[in-house]
Amino acid sequence: MSTLSSSLLNPRLSFSLKPLFLFSQSSFAPRKFQIPRQFVSAKRKTFSDLASEQSSATDNGGRSGRGGRSGALSPSPVVEKVQRIDVNPPKGTRDFPPEDMRLRTWLFNHFREVSRLFGFEEVDYPVLESEALFIRKAGEEIRDQLYCFEDRGNRRVALRPELTPSLARLVIQKGKSLSLPLKWFAIGQCWRYERMTRGRRREHYQWNMDILGLPEVTAEAELISSIVAFFKRIGITESDVGFKVSSRKVLQEVLRCYSVPENLFGKVCIIIDKIEKIPIDEIKRELNATGLSEEAIEELLQVLSIKSLTKLEEILGGAGEAVADLKELFSLSEKFGYSEWIQFDASVVRGLAYYTGIVFEGFDRQGKLRAICGGGRYDRLLSTFGGDDVPACGFGFGDAVIVELLKEKGLLPELNLEVDNIVCALDYDLQGVAAEVATKLREKGQSVDLVLESKPLKWVFKRAARTNAQRLVLVGNTEWQKGMVGVKILSSGEQYEIKLDELE
Amino acid sequence: MSTLSSSLLNPRLSFSLKPLFLFSQSSFAPRKFQIPRQFVSAKRKTFSDLASEQSSATDNGGRSGRGGRSGALSPSPVVEKVQRIDVNPPKGTRDFPPEDMRLRTWLFNHFREVSRLFGFEEVDYPVLESEALFIRKAGEEIRDQLYCFEDRGNRRVALRPELTPSLARLVIQKGKSLSLPLKWFAIGQCWRYERMTRGRRREHYQWNMDILGLPEVTAEAELISSIVAFFKRIGITESDVGFKVSSRKVLQEVLRCYSVPENLFGKVCIIIDKIEKIPIDEIKRELNATGLSEEAIEELLQVLSIKSLTKLEEILGGAGEAVADLKELFSLSEKFGYSEWIQFDASVVRGLAYYTGIVFEGFDRQGKLRAICGGGRYDRLLSTFGGDDVPACGFGFGDAVIVELLKEKGLLPELNLEVDNIVCALDYDLQGVAAEVATKLREKGQSVDLVLESKPLKWVFKRAARTNAQRLVLVGNTEWQKGMVGVKILSSGEQYEIKLDELE
Repeated sequence: MSTLSSSLLNPRLSFSLKPLFLFSQSSFAPRKFQIPRQFVSAKRKTFSDLASEQSSATDNGGRSGRGGRSGALSPSPVVEKVQRIDVNPPKGTRDFPPEDMRLRTWLFNHFREVSRLFGFEEVDYPVLESEALFIRKAGEEIRDQLYCFEDRGNRRVALRPELTPSLARLVIQKGKSLSLPLKWFAIGQCWRYERMTRGRRREHYQWNMDILGLPEVTAEAELISSIVAFFKRIGITESDVGFKVSSRKVLQEVLRCYSVPENLFGKVCIIIDKIEKIPIDEIKRELNATGLSEEAIEELLQVLSIKSLTKLEEILGGAGEAVADLKELFSLSEKFGYSEWIQFDASVVRGLAYYTGIVFEGFDRQGKLRAICGGGRYDRLLSTFGGDDVPACGFGFGDAVIVELLKEKGLLPELNLEVDNIVCALDYDLQGVAAEVATKLREKGQSVDLVLESKPLKWVFKRAARTNAQRLVLVGNTEWQKGMVGVKILSSGEQYEIKLDELE
Repeated sequence: MSTLSSSLLNPRLSFSLKPLFLFSQSSFAPRKFQIPRQFVSAKRKTFSDLASEQSSATDNGGRSGRGGRSGALSPSPVVEKVQRIDVNPPKGTRDFPPEDMRLRTWLFNHFREVSRLFGFEEVDYPVLESEALFIRKAGEEIRDQLYCFEDRGNRRVALRPELTPSLARLVIQKGKSLSLPLKWFAIGQCWRYERMTRGRRREHYQWNMDILGLPEVTAEAELISSIVAFFKRIGITESDVGFKVSSRKVLQEVLRCYSVPENLFGKVCIIIDKIEKIPIDEIKRELNATGLSEEAIEELLQVLSIKSLTKLEEILGGAGEAVADLKELFSLSEKFGYSEWIQFDASVVRGLAYYTGIVFEGFDRQGKLRAICGGGRYDRLLSTFGGDDVPACGFGFGDAVIVELLKEKGLLPELNLEVDNIVCALDYDLQGVAAEVATKLREKGQSVDLVLESKPLKWVFKRAARTNAQRLVLVGNTEWQKGMVGVKILSSGEQYEIKLDELE
């Protein structure tokens, strides 16, 4: 058990927190107050005091005792050291410090921009939903790993493991007021609770695009096209990734031949989805447990090994929907211009119970990573919630595997903080003027890192380098008397004086 | 109790869900399979079939039985109707259908743009944190309303009620690797569990900006400046809103005179923050219960009624930090250009225990709404978590009250879906060409709503009106034989033919 969990289980922790205001004479017993000596004698520090200190201060970013007025509030309290909390985010979750947030923003912006290019509208749903929304009989992994709990009103709720059930709920709610086909996308955090500790996370962000109201395979073709567009934007090519495509109807047709009841279909799909994850004997045992004969299982496994649409047609015949759908999708992929990206693979069934037709997943061709994304048709989901069915398909695209792939390929973008200006007053008295300069620049749309304290120029240049500032604007007495400020273009070193009003 | 909660409490619900594949002959008992008649005879529908149907189909957006291939899968199952789930999001939470999402995106973009103009870097933290992070002894409302629970690993966790404790945790974790001052912003969903049902929500999004490492009041001045910049961008003026500003040090100095122990300070502030929410006698009773004498309480309440800095100086004297800090802030507000926006008001203390210095809140001048935003200095927060203190200040700005204010002022923006093109094939055979046209336009950065089914032109124009498409691109046989497509500029009605390659 981690330090976090043990400290969480220790109810004393919350009581060992240090009070907010700690003076050495603090006490619950009311008594005559003595103003602490530091407080009375402490001369208020000014910018110039700080400036004179700074020449000797080590460059630790101001974190030393040099706390100005705040220093007066904290005369080394004579209390025991507070036990430090676990500073890590809860197990399986992430913080996003600026460098990680920049990558997340970059990724999300591409998700959004691709969705926009395809004419999709953004939506979102609560991260917390009723547990009932995610409970299905098929026993998907997603259900076993539901991050669920009872709230203070004794309702069973869950942090969403996926976005599609919420989409279905909202579509049923909106009913006839929606214009079909609707094309929606969402980028939302999804959660799962894994008991095992193999470094996998308990949350990830998922980009979803869904088309509702279209029974035609053109919908699936459009969705795959949008993922391809995304890959191309970020530098991923068809030699890096591909899509394995199949249809749940393939399995359905095989199961039908062996008189397997339709209501077992979801369960069978979920077992089959685990083929590459658990031993084949275990798969067979599980399939057998659902009532499939050994003959059916063998036939099923044989069909699943097919990688050619022609071969599939030989076995299933050309009359069924499975083959027809797939042929149409491959034909459309040529027109959309991504036929090089997709291949038929009967083993793809996806792990969600609700798919009914074409299913697909994006994979890295080196075979090192888990599926990058996946989706398919789910024409019957709404009726499982008591709504009227609407033909539907969509995909989910997580934020984890794609980042691994970009790393692998050396395609991770270099993203830095970049400000247009760093503005700095050379004297304390000019701090207000610097603020005025900053305000003027910001009103013109320029970003400004305003130096809010008196610092030596050396520190300012260091800061400018860290923030990749393009310009340094210096407010000095001599120039300001003429209504001017000093400008230094940091890339070229070019320096000049300019009237504040003329500064663009 | 709502329908939702009662159905959630009913464990049978999960078993009444309809299986995903429902045929009339469904059964768990294996038996010889009979291919349903509909399935065998169903001729695959083509685009042209659909097209010929469409002339007579009512314009219900395709939701009718016209399900194409999907129709074959759903021959009115002979099972009881599934009980409809509660289609509302959990109590106190929101869905964001496209129209609401557009407003959220508009708001967040302004938050982000203002933060960027001020040189702040975006960060985020898990929405789920250890409960310990939010538990403080002072008994803030925020703690009583913590959305907390035990996870499946028996850890006490909570949906974050605010972002600042997570910020503090991350700053302690990063330690010396951070360059101070750090300027971070975040936009995150925060949760609280309110038992009462007065239509208040249990979640909202909050924009935070924080500056760490600066003891100077310039930090507070900069933060208020950024909020003012935000207001100005969205059309809110100083006659609509203002900031009430005070300092926790005012109270501190009063309490010190009455020998009130420093560790009661947080508690006293939280009681005082409720002054306008509960009767004054109740306030007095609560203050008395903390050990304050009646004399101290009277003095305290008198000081809290002061609205003039000069008056405050008369009472507290000019030597203390409270008056000096406030005077500096008011002086800086002139330089930053927002002195018209701020006013001293000793009654402002804010409801969080950890503030130590200047506190402020944005209010609507008509007095109709709750505080729009609030913030202040919290120099001692990190040590309550066992870290080294760093001078800090920040604010939180929710997404609820500002929208009410914009409505009130008639300033809500009109936001519509706007696509550049709607692309449509005139014949089924040209669907692939339409896809090609769409792909080409998207590669040029143009957004395209591709019509993925055969529809009459009347429908297409209706759709174009709904999506505010600028152009209609029609792919017809005659034109395409010349490698051309038809274009109609929808605002002007202008029509022309153009070679696909020349379409920009």
